[in-house]
Amino acid sequence: MALSFSIIGTGALGGYYGALLHHAGFETHFLLHNDYAHVRACGLRVESIHGDLSIAQGNFWPDLSTLPACDVVCICLKSTANAQLREALASKVKPGGCVLVLQNGIGIEEEIASWVPGIFVFGGLCFLCSNKVGPGFIKHLDYGGIRLGNLESNGSQALILLEQIRLAFVTAKIETGIDKNLAQARWQKLMWNMPFNGLSVVLRCTTQQIMEHPAGLRLATQIMEEVEAAANACGSPVPQGFVHKMLENTRRMTPYLPSMRLDYDRGQAMEIDAIYSRPIARAAEHGYDMMHCRMLRDQLLMIQQESLHA
Amino acid sequence: MALSFSIIGTGALGGYYGALLHHAGFETHFLLHNDYAHVRACGLRVESIHGDLSIAQGNFWPDLSTLPACDVVCICLKSTANAQLREALASKVKPGGCVLVLQNGIGIEEEIASWVPGIFVFGGLCFLCSNKVGPGFIKHLDYGGIRLGNLESNGSQALILLEQIRLAFVTAKIETGIDKNLAQARWQKLMWNMPFNGLSVVLRCTTQQIMEHPAGLRLATQIMEEVEAAANACGSPVPQGFVHKMLENTRRMTPYLPSMRLDYDRGQAMEIDAIYSRPIARAAEHGYDMMHCRMLRDQLLMIQQESLHA
Repeated sequence: MALSFSIIGTGALGGYYGALLHHAGFETHFLLHNDYAHVRACGLRVESIHGDLSIAQGNFWPDLSTLPACDVVCICLKSTANAQLREALASKVKPGGCVLVLQNGIGIEEEIASWVPGIFVFGGLCFLCSNKVGPGFIKHLDYGGIRLGNLESNGSQALILLEQIRLAFVTAKIETGIDKNLAQARWQKLMWNMPFNGLSVVLRCTTQQIMEHPAGLRLATQIMEEVEAAANACGSPVPQGFVHKMLENTRRMTPYLPSMRLDYDRGQAMEIDAIYSRPIARAAEHGYDMMHCRMLRDQLLMIQQESLHA
Repeated sequence: MALSFSIIGTGALGGYYGALLHHAGFETHFLLHNDYAHVRACGLRVESIHGDLSIAQGNFWPDLSTLPACDVVCICLKSTANAQLREALASKVKPGGCVLVLQNGIGIEEEIASWVPGIFVFGGLCFLCSNKVGPGFIKHLDYGGIRLGNLESNGSQALILLEQIRLAFVTAKIETGIDKNLAQARWQKLMWNMPFNGLSVVLRCTTQQIMEHPAGLRLATQIMEEVEAAANACGSPVPQGFVHKMLENTRRMTPYLPSMRLDYDRGQAMEIDAIYSRPIARAAEHGYDMMHCRMLRDQLLMIQQESLHA
């Protein structure tokens, strides 16, 4: 039987993947919050570089209590909003189902697993350039692949379900792979997120402006190399030449405002904890001091306060 | 015979000290640029916390070529404008006179000395909170002391003239001391300038906001400690407890926008070279890597480009 999906957080990321799953024929339930009334009336609008993925009428739900239980509960919220899921999350997973955390940062799956004992928790890394540009209106700009990973605490039994999810995603035209080592994959994603999210906020600029200015490139490279060293210290070694490859990918990318910059521009909470404080703490536990990232984190904490008070 | 003074750059700093010298009866010549016509017509307005120091009619000059030679030529420009003095500077110094560099940073006196061979060059560190708030209008907010220092290349003969300058300044009610070691004094001043100038631009905040936020205090403290370590590495050791004392002074200071922040707000060039690149390079020559300051410098270079292009 085909898997059913719920999308907790129908934003730039959840809206895009949910729309792909819906159009591939999977039962897909969307949790919305501020945009619910708009989407109920006008549908979910998703414009992708691969074509229109809009959904005029779908399974849209206004709050967690009404959302039906599904096989795969995809957490697509900002990690700053996770705490509100704590109580109800387990009841939203069908027997034998799972929670799939499609968020940034390190250590989030472990925390969520502690809220849903006996339920599989997976992580997924999304390589997606997508923005929410209006109520219920998502623009997909580039990329879109997902790398899934198992949590050690699940055991290898969980890999059967993980493979089913991968096949469902591939059916939905999402380029999907499974990583043997989730922590390693998460560190690799941080190698992009830690330089470009923070710098784009602190310097009020795009990834392209960072790449094109010698000082910006120096900053990004130094931070990337620091994340690489932290990953190595934490036993999640990064492949040779990865910094260079990431920089090259970024150079070729459509000019882009990272999610943290969009949050900042909208006066919303930034994912400083998931993207900075957690990896910094994990590296420190392994004896490595992420000096540049600590400095950037402290700058973001100050800017965040100003921004939320503005 | 009383010393004569010229003030090259009648801004927040030059205008304040020049006005004090003028009112104490010293022959004082003011070089102005954009504000010349206004000051010629309306006078130089200087409001100090110690009272009104305005000058209705004074020795105001519109360009360097017209400025008479004086005993003490005070360089009060932003260091970013120094290059324009290179050719004419020597001719503005009376026989037996000197150039007094009242600027921020490290290594500026040595560079200027190479432009005026055979002429004494001194350095002075100004501990002054003063802003230019309009054309020919200066507000002095707090402090005002100067610490003078000799350049090694002058030899000890120069100390007689330096002492004369000190006495003139004291007569003009400027609290003035002579430092045995100019480099040491400059490093101590950098301990304030390197954290607060850069952070106030990058974080768009006041010194008070930095001091009151735990992350801001952490940033300022780390950078101060780094400057302290650099000074030690360069053979200009900082007294025990100096970081703590500087932080306490800053906490008690009237909320203040450092000069670099004012330059940024006005879309003017920031003194990144004098306050960051020169000390970073000098520390590197002595084998010390100012990591935090390098990061801040690179951020400023990026922000400066955006700002000048805006």
